[in-house]
Amino acid sequence: MGDRLLETARTNVRRRGDRGSFDRALAYAILDEALVAHVGFAVDGLPRVLPMTYGRIDDALYLHGAIANAMLRASDGADVCVTVTLLDALVLARAAMHHSMNYRCVVLYGRAERVDDEVEKRRAFDAVVEHSVAGRSVVARSANAAELRATLVLRLPIVEGSVKVRAGGPVDDPADLGLPVWAGIVPVHLARGEPVADGGTVTR
Amino acid sequence: MGDRLLETARTNVRRRGDRGSFDRALAYAILDEALVAHVGFAVDGLPRVLPMTYGRIDDALYLHGAIANAMLRASDGADVCVTVTLLDALVLARAAMHHSMNYRCVVLYGRAERVDDEVEKRRAFDAVVEHSVAGRSVVARSANAAELRATLVLRLPIVEGSVKVRAGGPVDDPADLGLPVWAGIVPVHLARGEPVADGGTVTR
Repeated sequence: MGDRLLETARTNVRRRGDRGSFDRALAYAILDEALVAHVGFAVDGLPRVLPMTYGRIDDALYLHGAIANAMLRASDGADVCVTVTLLDALVLARAAMHHSMNYRCVVLYGRAERVDDEVEKRRAFDAVVEHSVAGRSVVARSANAAELRATLVLRLPIVEGSVKVRAGGPVDDPADLGLPVWAGIVPVHLARGEPVADGGTVTR
Repeated sequence: MGDRLLETARTNVRRRGDRGSFDRALAYAILDEALVAHVGFAVDGLPRVLPMTYGRIDDALYLHGAIANAMLRASDGADVCVTVTLLDALVLARAAMHHSMNYRCVVLYGRAERVDDEVEKRRAFDAVVEHSVAGRSVVARSANAAELRATLVLRLPIVEGSVKVRAGGPVDDPADLGLPVWAGIVPVHLARGEPVADGGTVTR
């Protein structure tokens, strides 16, 4: 794989083109930091979007959203759009018009394919678990054969896509700069709180 | 509008049906808390998903993503799927298989329509600004006529859709409960940091 994502008609970042990029390393940094992907697919030509967890191994993104099994089955061999967004700040301008958000977003396009190879499937499974808590796939009981069989894993080769980033402060009209209105950014980030241990009494 | 979202074939929450709901008040609470929507639409039958800001007024969702003008134009009169997801916790089970996430998610379906009425457009505009920082539409300089004309606002009536919620701790197999593996949840939330004032030197 080259160091750039494949640019095509649909990866266009026409508007605010300066925010667009095809940098593979930047895309991977965003994918690795975020926790949830929004996966789009078309059913009878109509769009559906569902949130899913995912993992990345090299140039492949793996999906196995337990919440969306029917969707995953429908997506095997289907064109999907996987969008991963990190929100970095609220951007408060002096003018209502120029309010914005700072964000980093990856949009990937491609055909998702079911992973049948058991070795790859297990690696993908581990990658998804690792994705939210590093080291976790070593600590937790590994999936057994029955569990692997019951899990549908899809692979999306990371080939076609783009990155968009908005950073920095508000961009007001010069005429508004003197207005007595606070302007600036409010940084936001996904914070992790104190872990809460399970009582151990939960059963199916 | 009734107190429930319209249930249709595509709003199915078949898998883990106990997590599904059509409660309108719950949907609105999620929509009002989250900051970013992932909007899906189909172009030539192929899915695209882009992040957008939004606002809600009563039973209508308004989109006006500055990042996606071309997309917005394409979406006027088109079927869209708007998905809004709040991540609440990482769920760490004793078995890799049962790792999960706690989340609250609203999925809306419908046809987005351009808002041409100037009064509604202004109200929608304000709602989007208010959505991220309450009171902000009063403080900031309001959009003038030219800015309103340059802004494309779409209305999605909140009619058809569903809510999914996963809450609580990990659900391990009984046989795994004795394993020496920490299990529980790691709460996450979008934290707002200290505001950073703009130097006032930023110009177009």
